[in-house]
Amino acid sequence: MSRFASETVHLIATERLNMDANGTRPGVARSPGGMRQALDLLGPRFGERLTRAKGIVQQHANNTSWHPAEFPDAVLFPETTEEVAEAVRICALHGVPIIPFGVGTSLEGGVNAPYGGVSIDMGRMNNILAVHEEDMDCVVQAGVTRKQLNAHLRETGLFFPVDPGADATIGGMASTRASGTNAVRYGTMKDAILALTVVMPDGSIRKTGTRARKSAAGYDITRLFVGAEGTLGVITEATIKLFGIPEAISGAVCSFPDLASACNAVIATIRVGIPVARIELLDEVQVRACNAYSHLDIPETPTLFLEFHGTEAGVVEQTEMFGEIAREWGASNFTWTTRPEERSKLWEARHNVYFACFALRPGSKFIATDVCVPVSRLADAITQTKADIERTGLVAPIVGHVGDGNFHVSVMAMTDDPEEMERNEAFIRRLNSRAIEMDGTCTGEHGIGQGKRSFLVQEHGANVDTMRAIKAALDPQGIMNPGKIFLS
Amino acid sequence: MSRFASETVHLIATERLNMDANGTRPGVARSPGGMRQALDLLGPRFGERLTRAKGIVQQHANNTSWHPAEFPDAVLFPETTEEVAEAVRICALHGVPIIPFGVGTSLEGGVNAPYGGVSIDMGRMNNILAVHEEDMDCVVQAGVTRKQLNAHLRETGLFFPVDPGADATIGGMASTRASGTNAVRYGTMKDAILALTVVMPDGSIRKTGTRARKSAAGYDITRLFVGAEGTLGVITEATIKLFGIPEAISGAVCSFPDLASACNAVIATIRVGIPVARIELLDEVQVRACNAYSHLDIPETPTLFLEFHGTEAGVVEQTEMFGEIAREWGASNFTWTTRPEERSKLWEARHNVYFACFALRPGSKFIATDVCVPVSRLADAITQTKADIERTGLVAPIVGHVGDGNFHVSVMAMTDDPEEMERNEAFIRRLNSRAIEMDGTCTGEHGIGQGKRSFLVQEHGANVDTMRAIKAALDPQGIMNPGKIFLS
Repeated sequence: MSRFASETVHLIATERLNMDANGTRPGVARSPGGMRQALDLLGPRFGERLTRAKGIVQQHANNTSWHPAEFPDAVLFPETTEEVAEAVRICALHGVPIIPFGVGTSLEGGVNAPYGGVSIDMGRMNNILAVHEEDMDCVVQAGVTRKQLNAHLRETGLFFPVDPGADATIGGMASTRASGTNAVRYGTMKDAILALTVVMPDGSIRKTGTRARKSAAGYDITRLFVGAEGTLGVITEATIKLFGIPEAISGAVCSFPDLASACNAVIATIRVGIPVARIELLDEVQVRACNAYSHLDIPETPTLFLEFHGTEAGVVEQTEMFGEIAREWGASNFTWTTRPEERSKLWEARHNVYFACFALRPGSKFIATDVCVPVSRLADAITQTKADIERTGLVAPIVGHVGDGNFHVSVMAMTDDPEEMERNEAFIRRLNSRAIEMDGTCTGEHGIGQGKRSFLVQEHGANVDTMRAIKAALDPQGIMNPGKIFLS
Repeated sequence: MSRFASETVHLIATERLNMDANGTRPGVARSPGGMRQALDLLGPRFGERLTRAKGIVQQHANNTSWHPAEFPDAVLFPETTEEVAEAVRICALHGVPIIPFGVGTSLEGGVNAPYGGVSIDMGRMNNILAVHEEDMDCVVQAGVTRKQLNAHLRETGLFFPVDPGADATIGGMASTRASGTNAVRYGTMKDAILALTVVMPDGSIRKTGTRARKSAAGYDITRLFVGAEGTLGVITEATIKLFGIPEAISGAVCSFPDLASACNAVIATIRVGIPVARIELLDEVQVRACNAYSHLDIPETPTLFLEFHGTEAGVVEQTEMFGEIAREWGASNFTWTTRPEERSKLWEARHNVYFACFALRPGSKFIATDVCVPVSRLADAITQTKADIERTGLVAPIVGHVGDGNFHVSVMAMTDDPEEMERNEAFIRRLNSRAIEMDGTCTGEHGIGQGKRSFLVQEHGANVDTMRAIKAALDPQGIMNPGKIFLS
C-alpha cells in the first residue's frame, strides 16, 4: 500500500477542500502540560503497551489516501474494555485527545491526529467472544477483522456479509457506517449491529443494546455510535448479525454499450425485485485498469459484475431474470458461472481496484470520492460526472455499488502540483454538489473524516447543529477524535 | 374499541408497575400561567383548529390499553410543518408540554398528557407528497396512515410493508419504532425510514437525511428520532422505503403438539434461511379466541400462521422447505394456499386478535406486553411464561412475531380489582425480567411510553444516562411529550 506520510508531526488540521484560516479548535481543551501528565500516568500503568516509538507512531495516521499524515503523541495497545476505560479516564482528566484506531484503512483521514493525543490501537482486542449459531449472531471485540471473523465462522455455515474491500476491523467498520459490495442485499453496518460496548468520553462503560433482533426500548444509542467515527466514544465490543452462507452462488459479468444502459439495467433489476447480492459497475477506464492489474481480458466498455445468492433453483432463476434485463439494455456478452474459482478471480479483481488505479498513473496519490444518489438519478449522475472528468482532464476511473446508487470516482492525483490540485478539488466540489442536489449524499460509506466536513454542512444544513448539540452533551471537552466530522 | 377514559383531568402520571412517590417532574418547567398565555396566542392564530372541546380533548389520550387516560388542555390540528413549528415556538416560550398524536393506537400511554399541554393531532397532515417508483421510496406527511398509503400505492406495484396491525400513522409508527407481522422479512421502522422532517423543541425545522439508500454522513439523527416517542421533537414528514408487491404469495397454517415444537420449527426455518415473510405463533388459548371471534375451526393447539413471498417457483420452494421442517417437529395439519381470499381470512383473524381477546373475558381491560428474546431462547421464554400464566391463574393468550423472537402475552385484566392487579403486575415484572435476563428486551415494538419506564432502566442501566443527556441537550425545558420513556 502506498505510503506518503508527511514529515510534519502535529500538522495543524486543515480541510483542503475548505481551508480553515487557522488550526485552533475551541472544542479541544488541551492544556500545555496535559499530554506529559497523561503520559506520566499511562506509562507506568501500561508499560510497553504504551509507545512513542517513531516507527509505530507513524503507522498510526492516515496512509491510504491524499490527506497528509498527522501523528499522535503516543499509541496505546489495550487488551480489555476496562483498560480502554482507564486510559480514557486519564486522558479526560488532562484534556488529551483520543483517536480510536482499527487497521487504519479509513480513506478520509479518520485516524489522523491533528491535535496530537493518544491513538488507541484496538489490534490486541481481537477476540471472538461468542458465536450464537441458532441466533445467527456473534459478539466480538472491536479489533476483530472481517476476514478473521469469516475464517472463524466457516465451519458454522454462517458468514458476516459486510465487505468494504479492505480487511477492516469490526469497530472501524461500525464507526464509519461502512458497507461495500453486497450492501444491496445484506445492508450496511447500520443494519448489522445489534449492540455495542462503548467507552464514553468520561471513561464510563456503556452497553447500548441486547441480542434481541429488534427493540423499541428508548433512544437508538447503538445507531448513534454507528457512524460517529469515534467522536462520541471508543467502541470496544460489538454484537453483530450473521447470515447463512447461501446454498448456491453465481457470478456474472456483463458488458454494456454505454454507462446509461448499464445504469438502466441496474434500476430495472432492483425494481423487479431480483434480490441481487452484488451489482457493481466499472467504467471502461476502470475495466482497463483491472485488466492490466489482474490479467483479465474483459471488453473495455462499461461493465457490471454481479453475484446472486440463493438456492440452486433460485440462483438460476435470478440469473436468467437478470439476463433478460441485460439484453433489453443492449448487453453484449453476458456470461455467468457458479464455479467458485472463476467467481473468486472476478471479485479479487474488483477488490484490487484500489491497487489497479495506481498503475494507471504512476506516482499519483489517491483521492477517494463516495457519492450516493437515488437510483433513478444514477445514470444522470454518472454520465454528467464522466463528462466532467473528460472536460477537466482527470485520470479518474469510476467503480460503484450501483444497486444502492453509490459510486466512487478515484481521482489519481499529483498532490504536489498545486495547479492540478485546484482542478481536482473543484471537480470534487462539483461531484459532491451534484449528488446533494439530486437528494443524495456526499458519502455512502467512507464517512466524513477530515475530507468531507464542509460537504456535511452543505448536505445537512441545520441538522449539523443537532449533531453538534449531541457531541457537546456527550463529549463536552471535545477530546474524542477531534477534527473529524465537524468543521472547527 | 374498548374505551375506559378516567374522569380525572390532568391525573398525575404514575407508573403503575413502579409507583412514584409524587408526580412532580423536575424536567418540566410549566409556569402556572403558561398554558393560558400559550392558548391566548394559539387561539387567534389557529382559530377552530385549536380546540378545548371536551369530546375532542377526551379522544386525545390513551384509550387502547389499561393506562388511565390523561387529557391535554387543548388539541391543535396543524396542516403544515411550518404551522407545527409556529405552535411549538409558542409552547416553548411558555413551557407548555407538547404531545404529538397520530391516531392514538399506542399501547403504552404514549399519547397521554400527564402534565397537560397541547396535543398536536397530525390527522390533517395526511398528504402523500411524492412517490418515486424507480427509487421505490415515497415522501409523506406524518399523518398518513399505512392503509391509506398502501391504497394510494396499489397501481404502482409497490407497497409499504411495515404492519403493526392497527392502521397507525407513519409518524406514530416511526416514533415508536413499530414493526409487526412481517418485520422478519422487511424490517422495522428503523429500517424503513430514509429521512425525516422534524420540528425541534425550540420550533426549528430540521431535515435529517436524503433519499440516498445509504449514507455515512455524520450522526444518524434519523435513527435517533425513530423510536424517540415524540420526546425529542415532532415528526412532520417522512421519506420511506417501499417494496415491490411480490409476484406470488402463499399463506400457510400449521398445528404443533406443543409450544416448544412450534418454536423449534421457527428456529430451524430462520436458520436454514427461508426468507419467510410472516411467521406468527398463537398458543392454544389464542387459537380458541380467534376461532370464536373470527369463526374459524383451527385445531386448538399451538399454531403457526405463515406467509411466503417471492416468484411463483420461489414461493413453492419456500413452502415445501418449511413443510419438511414442520413435519420434523411433529406438525399435524400443514395446509397452504395461494388463493388471496383464503389468505385474507387467516390474516384478518390474526389482526383481530386484539378484539378476540376481549371476548375471552368480558368486561376485562387489556394489558399489553411485548418482550423480544434471541430466537434460541424463544422456546424457553414461552414455555416458562406459559407455566407462569397457569400458576398465576391469568386469562392471557400468547401471540408472537416469533421469527424475530417477539411475543405478546395479552393479560386480560379486571383493572378495578387491586388484588388481581397486584398479581398481574408481578407477573409482568417476571415476564420482562425473564426476557432481559435472556439478553432480550422488554419491548420489541410497542415502545416504553408510560408503562415500561422502570424496565428501560432494568434493561439499559447506565445507557439510560446517555439517553437522558441527549434529551437534556435537545429539549432542555423538557416540554416534548413529558412523562414518557424516562422515570421522573
